[in-house]
Amino acid sequence: MGSVQSFRKLCDRPKNTNVRISLPAVCTVWQIAMIILFGIFIRYSIEADPHWIDYRKANNISSDIENDFYYRYPSFQDVHVMIYVGFGFLMTFLKRYSFGGVGFNFLISAFGFQWALLMQGWFHSLDYTDGKIKIGIENLINADFCVASCLIAYGAVLGKVSPVQLMVMTLFGITLYAVEEYIILNLIHAKDAGGSMVIHAFGAYYGLSISYMLYRPNLDQSSRLQGSLYHSDVFTMIGTLFLWMFWPSFNSAIANHGDGQLRAVINTYLSLAASVLTTVVISSLCNKHGKLDMVHIQNATLAGGVAVGTAAEFMLMPYGSLIVGFCCGVISTLGYVYVTPFLEKHLKIHDTCGVHNLHGMPAIVGGIVGAVTAACATESAYGTEGLISTFDFTGDFKNMTPAKQGGHQAAGLCVALCFGIGGGILVGAILRLPIWGDPADDNCFNDEVYWEVPEDEESIPPMIQYNNHMQRKDALASNFTLEHQDH
Amino acid sequence: MGSVQSFRKLCDRPKNTNVRISLPAVCTVWQIAMIILFGIFIRYSIEADPHWIDYRKANNISSDIENDFYYRYPSFQDVHVMIYVGFGFLMTFLKRYSFGGVGFNFLISAFGFQWALLMQGWFHSLDYTDGKIKIGIENLINADFCVASCLIAYGAVLGKVSPVQLMVMTLFGITLYAVEEYIILNLIHAKDAGGSMVIHAFGAYYGLSISYMLYRPNLDQSSRLQGSLYHSDVFTMIGTLFLWMFWPSFNSAIANHGDGQLRAVINTYLSLAASVLTTVVISSLCNKHGKLDMVHIQNATLAGGVAVGTAAEFMLMPYGSLIVGFCCGVISTLGYVYVTPFLEKHLKIHDTCGVHNLHGMPAIVGGIVGAVTAACATESAYGTEGLISTFDFTGDFKNMTPAKQGGHQAAGLCVALCFGIGGGILVGAILRLPIWGDPADDNCFNDEVYWEVPEDEESIPPMIQYNNHMQRKDALASNFTLEHQDH
Amino acid sequence: MGSVQSFRKLCDRPKNTNVRISLPAVCTVWQIAMIILFGIFIRYSIEADPHWIDYRKANNISSDIENDFYYRYPSFQDVHVMIYVGFGFLMTFLKRYSFGGVGFNFLISAFGFQWALLMQGWFHSLDYTDGKIKIGIENLINADFCVASCLIAYGAVLGKVSPVQLMVMTLFGITLYAVEEYIILNLIHAKDAGGSMVIHAFGAYYGLSISYMLYRPNLDQSSRLQGSLYHSDVFTMIGTLFLWMFWPSFNSAIANHGDGQLRAVINTYLSLAASVLTTVVISSLCNKHGKLDMVHIQNATLAGGVAVGTAAEFMLMPYGSLIVGFCCGVISTLGYVYVTPFLEKHLKIHDTCGVHNLHGMPAIVGGIVGAVTAACATESAYGTEGLISTFDFTGDFKNMTPAKQGGHQAAGLCVALCFGIGGGILVGAILRLPIWGDPADDNCFNDEVYWEVPEDEESIPPMIQYNNHMQRKDALASNFTLEHQDH
Repeated sequence: MGSVQSFRKLCDRPKNTNVRISLPAVCTVWQIAMIILFGIFIRYSIEADPHWIDYRKANNISSDIENDFYYRYPSFQDVHVMIYVGFGFLMTFLKRYSFGGVGFNFLISAFGFQWALLMQGWFHSLDYTDGKIKIGIENLINADFCVASCLIAYGAVLGKVSPVQLMVMTLFGITLYAVEEYIILNLIHAKDAGGSMVIHAFGAYYGLSISYMLYRPNLDQSSRLQGSLYHSDVFTMIGTLFLWMFWPSFNSAIANHGDGQLRAVINTYLSLAASVLTTVVISSLCNKHGKLDMVHIQNATLAGGVAVGTAAEFMLMPYGSLIVGFCCGVISTLGYVYVTPFLEKHLKIHDTCGVHNLHGMPAIVGGIVGAVTAACATESAYGTEGLISTFDFTGDFKNMTPAKQGGHQAAGLCVALCFGIGGGILVGAILRLPIWGDPADDNCFNDEVYWEVPEDEESIPPMIQYNNHMQRKDALASNFTLEHQDH
Repeated sequence: MGSVQSFRKLCDRPKNTNVRISLPAVCTVWQIAMIILFGIFIRYSIEADPHWIDYRKANNISSDIENDFYYRYPSFQDVHVMIYVGFGFLMTFLKRYSFGGVGFNFLISAFGFQWALLMQGWFHSLDYTDGKIKIGIENLINADFCVASCLIAYGAVLGKVSPVQLMVMTLFGITLYAVEEYIILNLIHAKDAGGSMVIHAFGAYYGLSISYMLYRPNLDQSSRLQGSLYHSDVFTMIGTLFLWMFWPSFNSAIANHGDGQLRAVINTYLSLAASVLTTVVISSLCNKHGKLDMVHIQNATLAGGVAVGTAAEFMLMPYGSLIVGFCCGVISTLGYVYVTPFLEKHLKIHDTCGVHNLHGMPAIVGGIVGAVTAACATESAYGTEGLISTFDFTGDFKNMTPAKQGGHQAAGLCVALCFGIGGGILVGAILRLPIWGDPADDNCFNDEVYWEVPEDEESIPPMIQYNNHMQRKDALASNFTLEHQDH
Repeated sequence: MGSVQSFRKLCDRPKNTNVRISLPAVCTVWQIAMIILFGIFIRYSIEADPHWIDYRKANNISSDIENDFYYRYPSFQDVHVMIYVGFGFLMTFLKRYSFGGVGFNFLISAFGFQWALLMQGWFHSLDYTDGKIKIGIENLINADFCVASCLIAYGAVLGKVSPVQLMVMTLFGITLYAVEEYIILNLIHAKDAGGSMVIHAFGAYYGLSISYMLYRPNLDQSSRLQGSLYHSDVFTMIGTLFLWMFWPSFNSAIANHGDGQLRAVINTYLSLAASVLTTVVISSLCNKHGKLDMVHIQNATLAGGVAVGTAAEFMLMPYGSLIVGFCCGVISTLGYVYVTPFLEKHLKIHDTCGVHNLHGMPAIVGGIVGAVTAACATESAYGTEGLISTFDFTGDFKNMTPAKQGGHQAAGLCVALCFGIGGGILVGAILRLPIWGDPADDNCFNDEVYWEVPEDEESIPPMIQYNNHMQRKDALASNFTLEHQDH
């Protein structure tokens, strides 16, 4: 029976890839749903509301500059660039899937962002007095974070799914993320400023599980399109560099004001710098001529940022950050050389962008580093006030100790992994249905399936010549036509 | 007579495109004029002046952070990126006009910015005590805004004009903009934080009118160069994404401090997100295989930002922003499919980048949305203080009411359109003169006319081989040469 | 003897380019050294330390927003983009050295940044109470500045050296920079906010001297790879524009809070704008058809930013900035047309990116402008407080006068040049050793030496056809395979 179904599914495929009904239907319905839900639930936070002026007077807040907007907006814009240009261009490396890489990244981010505002709002920003979600700058940042986890997942299935499948994947991904985030941050009270666990661990294993469920035994039929081109590799470097440069903003965007944000920036930058060097080391060692592999430079150099996410605002110390980056550069690059082929061969997990190496493994390291750093926290290192504010030992958690906190951090990592794997298998099963218009095995990684692709470079040079030859002739010709019109 | 003239004009063209005298002459003279005018008129504002230190003490301003610089500089830099990278790369899509797209965009922005500082300064920042224009961070932002309107106009004539024509177009465009802006914002007292009317409506119709005046009946002779290439479309996505990501900064850059800026950011981001989804919907529906068209993704996704410009800092409400974005994504994409061909066929308006779809129509929607939102403003929604500060009901306009304001907004839109169309026809007439070195009909959209273009990709692979073959041979050869020199 | 050695060196070369041992060794050892040194010396500054919270209370600082982080972080991120994307993509113009341009730029920046934190820390941020270097946001900015000088030097030798040589060059470059910076800023007490002298003059002449020491008489053997491609020129514009746009942040990043930063921004932007126009003027005049040369637009347009670096925070006045930019656009473009060929032909200095035109000459102009502007400073122009704070006439320098300061500025320029030339000759001599695996003369500017380069564009179109032809056939085939597995 299963075989019959999968047989049908495959037979339908070549005809199926026309998403002219399904894609517009999904986008229209969901966007209208967003408008309705926003109308019912979403309002401006006090800081985005003109009443803020009266409010400030009442609470004698000295000045506009105290508005959280000025603490967080620059970081928000950096995160924003990471989501749309960073992730988008990181996925342009395939020789004929650059449109899909940057274009679908754009589509699902724009949708996911709206859905994330709602999902996270219900959990974190619901004003019980009037049942409305009050959004400010921090909600925008968190929504972009939430979207990031789905983009990581996209990296694992890049080129093998239809835009409709991506929309479904994002809808469920955002939902799972919001629940998982609430459990980890609020119930378990783990800290995760840069989202090593909440964003990267969840996103990577969510994507990998979906990729496992959608495994294509005959993917080698489109192997000819799986490589990169000289120029597409340069495009990818745009994505890599914007991710790398703005990662300090990513890890510090929602950290505590003042020293918390600055500390997160320092730790992240140092960790990233170290992983660049070790990536080069392993990449060169693994090539028999000592040549560097662009795939490693494009991805493994970012591992340090992932791994320092949780501990970014802790007292990891500068040398600690360097050590984390050092190790993750090594782990991540070795992952590209040995783990990715292993996963595909033995576990039937095809990982197009190697998210397991860039996000998966470093995220686990990051979770562990976070747990250890938290467990080792002391009043002498953080100061009395500092310890409380950094780990937020307030309210119900007044009696927490660093040691306990370490345990909670570890628990948080486990929850993230469970949600990622469990959710991925569930959603993967749904995406197996033969109704989503995904491409045939021999037509993956091919923009021509979902995009109008322009003619190729080949066709220019002759034209240019033609143009030069015809110049005088056409000029004369055109004169008569125009003169004719002037009468 | 007219026919004879146009006949001559056309005959001259092929010889004419040498701008070796005209371009340097224009740039040199105008740059020297700028230096002189800046010397006479432009000084630093108090906040950019070291006297600021004494001033602060006198006015006991608590701290440097109160300097407007820290409220606006991050937004300024985002706007800056939109002007040079955003607009610049958005115009690189043509297969052989990428140099002209990004290069001339760079040139006219750098000139326009200087001229805008003067023109806007005379109207808005003139210190009557000493007759000097005092410039600070807000002047820089407004000058970039002013430049934006000319870059929009450039989009309509991209590839069909000479750099000299562009300089003239910019000179007049900036001048008209400054007058129109003064009338709309100061005399009519319309609010337009994001410049839907002042920037986009004016810019689009200014460019379209010029394009109408410069209509080329035989443009199909260079149709072979009007298409895009796979990689040039990816370059264009860089422009699209930077415009899209930083649009919230564009609409909030000169909004009121604090809640005004934050509200503008939220509204703009939501509107943009919605237009991404509806652009995909229409793009897919309009293709018989349901395939997406890159042109739509590159442009129509931005319509939401244009349309929410005027109302960005009003209480549009999050769902209101989504509705605006939803509609404009639809309108703009349909514009690319149906309106652009119509304009060319029946109104003799050739619109290279489709600015009518991306800026023109959404700007009109934006003006109307702004008028309606203003007219519906209530004290309960804005708060007593909020209403006054948002709509600036102070000074001569102390007695304004929201209803009246709505009327003024509508009036503002009309003024913007009149200036755009009227000014465009005027300037277009000037640009028709046969002295500007514009390209022949069969040579439009071709960088070779104004740029030294490097050889083509074709020529590499053989070289590489050659290189490998010759390696040992050359190495030996070179040794002897060098040894010879050592004697 | 020398000839024998050089003969050996050349013979070895073709085998030598395998850096599989040397590159990983250097990166590993140096990164481990960094970790150890950071462990011994580097700690968080008070503003990045949680004790900050207690500290604030003690010193009743009103709010987190007073943290220097919020004054400088947006500028830091802009500088950061200039280092990695700006310089990186500026070096992608060569038709087959884009990987090396952006990739090695990435590697040496990541290493140089760490080493700079230590070197500059020892000179500027050492806390003598505990012998630790306390790093905050300003240290990060200064480290990026320090890296910039080495990237400028890289531009002179682009394509002709191995990554190992680059690492050595960076190690010594950073060291020299830190000493030179200490002498110029602290001992001589010259002001140099934008680093015209400290960064650009030093970096340019450091690189040029190295290039002189590594002169290759037979470089013409790889002349076929020295040109650019249409698309690689567009990539380079990404670098150019991000450098150009963010240069105001570069020159203002460490300027005085408030008016100092704003003034630096205004001066820099104006100077840059003027140099764009004059670059176009000269570029067009120097071409017999009046065509523009992309090389000039990509580089000379930035000269204005270099030249205004030292005087950026002085009262240069807006028109003064325009004049500086005007002159440097001319000088720099003429440099590309006449000076670069002269240097290569007569002084045996091959300057791949023309750093002498973009950084060298404008930096000297900048140093002189700075000296003159300082010497002409008056209390009436700066205000009593302003003069003292702008030139930091405090402590040991309480009795300085503007005239004296002018002299010190000039002295600073000389020191920078001496360190650049002297250091470059020294380091160049070291890099001549035949152990660094640099490429053969006929194999320079070729990524294939150090990178795994993907196949070429040529190979796609046939594949696409193949793909369409084979579609049905493969689809059927694949079904059976999968069904087979289902059993």
